[in-house]
Amino acid sequence: MEPGAIVKKMYDNDAFSQWLGIEVLDVQAGYCKLRMVVKKQMLNGFSLAHGGITYSLADSALAFASNSRGRQAVSVETSINHLEKLKAGDELLAETIELSVKNNIGFYRTEIKSDDKLVAIFNGTVFRTNKTW
Amino acid sequence: MEPGAIVKKMYDNDAFSQWLGIEVLDVQAGYCKLRMVVKKQMLNGFSLAHGGITYSLADSALAFASNSRGRQAVSVETSINHLEKLKAGDELLAETIELSVKNNIGFYRTEIKSDDKLVAIFNGTVFRTNKTW
Amino acid sequence: MEPGAIVKKMYDNDAFSQWLGIEVLDVQAGYCKLRMVVKKQMLNGFSLAHGGITYSLADSALAFASNSRGRQAVSVETSINHLEKLKAGDELLAETIELSVKNNIGFYRTEIKSDDKLVAIFNGTVFRTNKTW
Amino acid sequence: MEPGAIVKKMYDNDAFSQWLGIEVLDVQAGYCKLRMVVKKQMLNGFSLAHGGITYSLADSALAFASNSRGRQAVSVETSINHLEKLKAGDELLAETIELSVKNNIGFYRTEIKSDDKLVAIFNGTVFRTNKTW
Repeated sequence: MEPGAIVKKMYDNDAFSQWLGIEVLDVQAGYCKLRMVVKKQMLNGFSLAHGGITYSLADSALAFASNSRGRQAVSVETSINHLEKLKAGDELLAETIELSVKNNIGFYRTEIKSDDKLVAIFNGTVFRTNKTW
Repeated sequence: MEPGAIVKKMYDNDAFSQWLGIEVLDVQAGYCKLRMVVKKQMLNGFSLAHGGITYSLADSALAFASNSRGRQAVSVETSINHLEKLKAGDELLAETIELSVKNNIGFYRTEIKSDDKLVAIFNGTVFRTNKTW
Repeated sequence: MEPGAIVKKMYDNDAFSQWLGIEVLDVQAGYCKLRMVVKKQMLNGFSLAHGGITYSLADSALAFASNSRGRQAVSVETSINHLEKLKAGDELLAETIELSVKNNIGFYRTEIKSDDKLVAIFNGTVFRTNKTW
Repeated sequence: MEPGAIVKKMYDNDAFSQWLGIEVLDVQAGYCKLRMVVKKQMLNGFSLAHGGITYSLADSALAFASNSRGRQAVSVETSINHLEKLKAGDELLAETIELSVKNNIGFYRTEIKSDDKLVAIFNGTVFRTNKTW
């Protein structure tokens, strides 16, 4: 399967990414770019986007980018720094790039920007299984 | 304010924690225990709980535990390992403990279990602001 | 090979662990306990133990614990929080436990204590190769 | 003090960075570039550079870059992925950039390359104290 077809298949079954309102803007082997908008349901007790929202966006981006090469991949470690406060209505763009990919392990970085400002940095390591798409 | 009152105030305004269906089981200074159940809307393209779900539960637990001491705290770095696959209907228990707290920085660990099995490990570092609850 | 024999073989060829003055106190499958003392050569520009010293001790502990099961393992992601300042002469005890081990991936936590106080927390994820000791 | 003078003062007292043979190639506010060569004493039981070596180089780079702005800074969380195996004689170049700096917290990324290939990725978060250089 081609990268775009794999991600379409993943996304079409991904209820949570759909709930988040994620749009897939671009997919290539080892790469993807996503868009979403912060909604009121996504806010925490400070009226800011819950940390889980940017994490979830970045985690979907990691899943799409790392699976797009055709081997099924699962994350083994992810970390995120939340750099800026986000409010309802803010538009988020997430871009995942591949830093290194070996037979069994892949390393990816996702940056989330809002209005051209870096708002979160997410690093992810995946295990690449032997199952193919 | 007392730990329980702070967390009640945070939770009552936290739309996303409410959407997740989080229940606060216990709160003490620097500690909290939460419960939630995985729902169909929370699944990813593999029909498993999206990584963002366990992250979000753990991130709420971190926020509650670190704010419960009375100083407002914001996370600066968080990481999570997803150890087990989770399906719709699985019950999750998250417990956050304080590893070390200094004037400005606090270190916390959250473990998520399902049916007594460890399913995710989350580590969080917070910056403690000068604002009080 | 037995856990103790594997670690002895690793240690006997590990020039850097020897330079650090690491002593192996205990080894079991998926577990080890190490000891070392901070020396003047290990200090940074603040006259405190360089962050690389506690990291190196913990990384050796991870390598020993994760290889002791008989499969060769390599770390894919490690993180450390430095909680306390350490001076020359301070004795460090590092203990690594196994949080979860799957066919291909293992998750470990190392805690470093000095004088019974937690001074660093280290989390490590390893890839387990097919090579055996 | 100027960035270069701060780093010179730090380096001149940093016994471990000197033992590593680190050379400071460039320093600017929030930035630095370092060089070192892997030596036999730095190898582990696989005859490869111990993970603590690239970590230590990156941690020195983080300390120099984050302190160079004039406020004393201490790391609160660091993580590293080791991407490639390194042997004795390999030359390492570490470059630290500032991703975001706030009043109290700064976020930095260090990449280590050898022969133009990315060999390690290091992310660091620092707390910025009120002490100045």
